[in-house]
Amino acid sequence: MAKSETLGLEIEMPVSYAAAVERVTAALKQEGFGVLTRIDIHDAFKEKLGVEFREYSILGACNPPLAHRALSASPEVGLLLPCNVTVEATSPDRATVRIVNPLEMMRMGAADASPEVQAVASEAAERLQRVAEALAA
Amino acid sequence: MAKSETLGLEIEMPVSYAAAVERVTAALKQEGFGVLTRIDIHDAFKEKLGVEFREYSILGACNPPLAHRALSASPEVGLLLPCNVTVEATSPDRATVRIVNPLEMMRMGAADASPEVQAVASEAAERLQRVAEALAA
Repeated sequence: MAKSETLGLEIEMPVSYAAAVERVTAALKQEGFGVLTRIDIHDAFKEKLGVEFREYSILGACNPPLAHRALSASPEVGLLLPCNVTVEATSPDRATVRIVNPLEMMRMGAADASPEVQAVASEAAERLQRVAEALAA
Repeated sequence: MAKSETLGLEIEMPVSYAAAVERVTAALKQEGFGVLTRIDIHDAFKEKLGVEFREYSILGACNPPLAHRALSASPEVGLLLPCNVTVEATSPDRATVRIVNPLEMMRMGAADASPEVQAVASEAAERLQRVAEALAA
């Protein structure tokens, strides 16, 4: 089941962290989102701070046609891109996936958002909702 | 001058795009932020869509101690990380830099934000404000 949180959707997956990252990447691709960036938080904290942290990654997902429409309409939208998806190991065979809600992100800049940017955020939100449903199935 | 916008700060720099990226990266480093990700939007749009777009990059800036405090307090904060900084060519010798305001980002999840996460967002905002001031000087 995909649970709706303030910032986005949360899905518990009964698979390993590595399998979850693979399945999330594949599900995003089905909706036209490529993973353009990936931060492995556990590696970054180990390297920069010398501390242990559970496996946790932040994937930056981008749907190029939607990003192009949004940035053409409003260049400051880059501050809200890409759409973040996090994958977190909660046990050796369970992972929590979180997917940002672009409509919540837009709400921040709501006073300024053009109709085109709103339309893009709505379409991105629908696509990411389907990603969450596919992962929760 | 650093101009305050809804989503963050905006700085016009009388330098080339490439020089602006370098200066932004150096100014972030002064405040403890490393650039962990970079999306070259013009390259991505050219490759994925076959369209021309002006030089525009999205830098993902992360201050590891602050990120560690935030993620330890609240794992869903990963949906708001890293802090975005965009650099956009506006002419061959001018660039626009935008720096996200972490306090605006937090406002989205305000109902849930713990005091620790709020404190981290405030400190990140102060540091990014100093980055903006250094770039505008």
